[in-house]
Amino acid sequence: MAQHHVVIVGGGFAGLAAAKALGNRNVQVTLIDRRNFHLFQPLLYQVATGGLSPADICAPIRAVVRSYKNIRTILAEVTGFDLAGKKVLLADGELGFDSLLVAAGARHHYFGNEQWEPLAPGLKTIEDATAIRRKILWAFESAERETDLEKRLAWLTFVVVGGGPTGVELAGALGEIANDTLKEDFRTCRPEESRILLLDAGDKILSNFPPDLAEAAEKALLQLGVRCLNRRYVTAVDEDGVTIRLKDSGTSDRIASKTVIWAAGVKGSPLAASLAESAGLVADRAGRVPVTGDCSLAGFPNVFALGDMAAFAGADGNMLPGVAPVAMQQGPYVAKLILNRLANRTTEPFRYTDKGNLATIGRHSAIADFGTFHATGLVAWVLWLFIHLMFLVGFQNRLQVLTHWAFQYISFNRNARLITANALTPTQHKGT
Amino acid sequence: MAQHHVVIVGGGFAGLAAAKALGNRNVQVTLIDRRNFHLFQPLLYQVATGGLSPADICAPIRAVVRSYKNIRTILAEVTGFDLAGKKVLLADGELGFDSLLVAAGARHHYFGNEQWEPLAPGLKTIEDATAIRRKILWAFESAERETDLEKRLAWLTFVVVGGGPTGVELAGALGEIANDTLKEDFRTCRPEESRILLLDAGDKILSNFPPDLAEAAEKALLQLGVRCLNRRYVTAVDEDGVTIRLKDSGTSDRIASKTVIWAAGVKGSPLAASLAESAGLVADRAGRVPVTGDCSLAGFPNVFALGDMAAFAGADGNMLPGVAPVAMQQGPYVAKLILNRLANRTTEPFRYTDKGNLATIGRHSAIADFGTFHATGLVAWVLWLFIHLMFLVGFQNRLQVLTHWAFQYISFNRNARLITANALTPTQHKGT
Repeated sequence: MAQHHVVIVGGGFAGLAAAKALGNRNVQVTLIDRRNFHLFQPLLYQVATGGLSPADICAPIRAVVRSYKNIRTILAEVTGFDLAGKKVLLADGELGFDSLLVAAGARHHYFGNEQWEPLAPGLKTIEDATAIRRKILWAFESAERETDLEKRLAWLTFVVVGGGPTGVELAGALGEIANDTLKEDFRTCRPEESRILLLDAGDKILSNFPPDLAEAAEKALLQLGVRCLNRRYVTAVDEDGVTIRLKDSGTSDRIASKTVIWAAGVKGSPLAASLAESAGLVADRAGRVPVTGDCSLAGFPNVFALGDMAAFAGADGNMLPGVAPVAMQQGPYVAKLILNRLANRTTEPFRYTDKGNLATIGRHSAIADFGTFHATGLVAWVLWLFIHLMFLVGFQNRLQVLTHWAFQYISFNRNARLITANALTPTQHKGT
Repeated sequence: MAQHHVVIVGGGFAGLAAAKALGNRNVQVTLIDRRNFHLFQPLLYQVATGGLSPADICAPIRAVVRSYKNIRTILAEVTGFDLAGKKVLLADGELGFDSLLVAAGARHHYFGNEQWEPLAPGLKTIEDATAIRRKILWAFESAERETDLEKRLAWLTFVVVGGGPTGVELAGALGEIANDTLKEDFRTCRPEESRILLLDAGDKILSNFPPDLAEAAEKALLQLGVRCLNRRYVTAVDEDGVTIRLKDSGTSDRIASKTVIWAAGVKGSPLAASLAESAGLVADRAGRVPVTGDCSLAGFPNVFALGDMAAFAGADGNMLPGVAPVAMQQGPYVAKLILNRLANRTTEPFRYTDKGNLATIGRHSAIADFGTFHATGLVAWVLWLFIHLMFLVGFQNRLQVLTHWAFQYISFNRNARLITANALTPTQHKGT
């Protein structure tokens, strides 16, 4: 009898954890990704702000699963699913499966205003990160050469839309760049006069954290020169800034800024909608596939959706958040369920163990929520450093990131602040 | 009286060395580059082969000259020169000078076949390096999925055109990738069955080295699985391979290959021609500006051309080679000449001190030519490592590169092997 064939779509936290749990077991595994590397997304904002290099937070998927001889990796673009025919459709072929795990992640969400994307890029891929890095560094370079004071202020005004952890981390890093990294680098403009604004529609930033921690984060941001503007919606984005509406008064306001970064929302990968459709289901408003208690799709016990693109109802009835720990627990859970089934054993429904929540703001400053234990400042920051290093894939990556961080800590420098792009010239860049 | 204003075009080896030598002296310096970083070109091939990250061999120019308060850096595109009017023309303005140093480097040279560039990319910029890295890694990924054996062989055939140091280094690194790095990574194709061919029109590779060292290099390449095909010209390049003509028999031959890399020649930056024209001179066949014994242009004692884009006649009447040491000696020489002039002192003509020549092939293997002292193998390799680390700009870069090399040495892994590009999908990539 042929071995049971498990196809895993996506080499992110969920897919890679599932693959490892199935490694060297009595199943055949095919891992499909359209990139040849696993990306450690929690540190992506550090690539966007010139602290780390792309390769520091990426691990070649083939190298990660090299020792598992039952895992075959293919670099391919999945275009859809034929669940009834037990097939995954690729851009250049198709692939049969016995069990299917789809963990294709999420993209940023502009809530119907997709035309804002080129003006206010989001941060999900390595290319997003190097594009945002270019945008930020280019703004300071332009400010240096701009003689009109009003225009220079627009180059030195940075707007981050969305006060979740990514928005807070980006804004905090921008504060450090302006106040420390670039302080001595320019002769005309003064980076420390930058305005960094964090816009949020809610009552306070970091709404998934307890109020005392969110307040501590807001204070820490203020010390870095970041102003949090809450209860404000973005109603328009253009090349010269953003238009916002104040929730309370209903009046509109205008912020002149050449650098707007989007961190306001995420939406399941387009593959989520396509998977849902193939199963006769409907993706939810955030573009996620509804799944049952064992992460499978209703009516398709051998098809699973995991991680950011799955809508899994937690113990409290709310959907589990789109964070790495959920994906890292769901992957091995589904792997175990498949192995149990092959051994005719049953498996309990999936239960997420929330081990806590961390967000960093800047040097010596982070917040940590471990249920009854809350931490801020240096303690939370050290915890954040330690946990992120621990979960990075690959010992070399850990050492490289540690080296970068140590130098950054001592010298305030950010070594990876390169403006790169294909055939970049300032003139060409200005037009984009 | 206003301070003497020195404008330096280009932040490469020559420009940066000149700027440093003028740092905190009684002149005003403007350093113009269209990139915000200095690139350590001798290690660029290691970025192209996934051993190092771009930021490891780049240093932000502003950070390098930060402590010299008389140096102003601007990120701008130089479009031409008005030497009579003492002005540098920029894409978005102009800049007056009292003394001008132009050191804009070189690009690869296709000898009239510029249409080959997209098919057989050269290696001069960070973007070139990541594009070649993508091309190489993509070839192995495609071989893994190709079922037609002939087509698979074409994916596993790598042609490097040009047997100079860059070609040798690239071919050697390709040999290591195929035989060591990727050995266990694939399930269908066998990277160690790759064919790596180094084409050269001359009698032997590395024509600028003594024959005994060139022969040693050829043997070392063979051990890495690289075949040197000498006395062959490329007559055509297309998507499926190269057509070559054998110098001896005059017959044509065809090599089916999906990955052709160009290392066959360089040509001065387009700014060299434009500078020569503005001075009433003519650039030479290699696109270089002819300069006098003090690196200035005939008739313009305050205008200097340095490094790869200058044609400087050495003691033997031959033009100095386009290598880093020439640039690194010319920069401080011209800086000193300018300071001497301001102090009414004369300066001897420039004399290049050739300290030797190194090329690396792979693990434990390099060649070193120090005139009477020749070295090969491990000794030359350790020398190469030491000298390249020593000349890298920035202590952090040195430590990062050392870390990468140490890991690569121990594990045979290359951590920076990422296929990146804007919105890369395999399908899109195939079309390019």
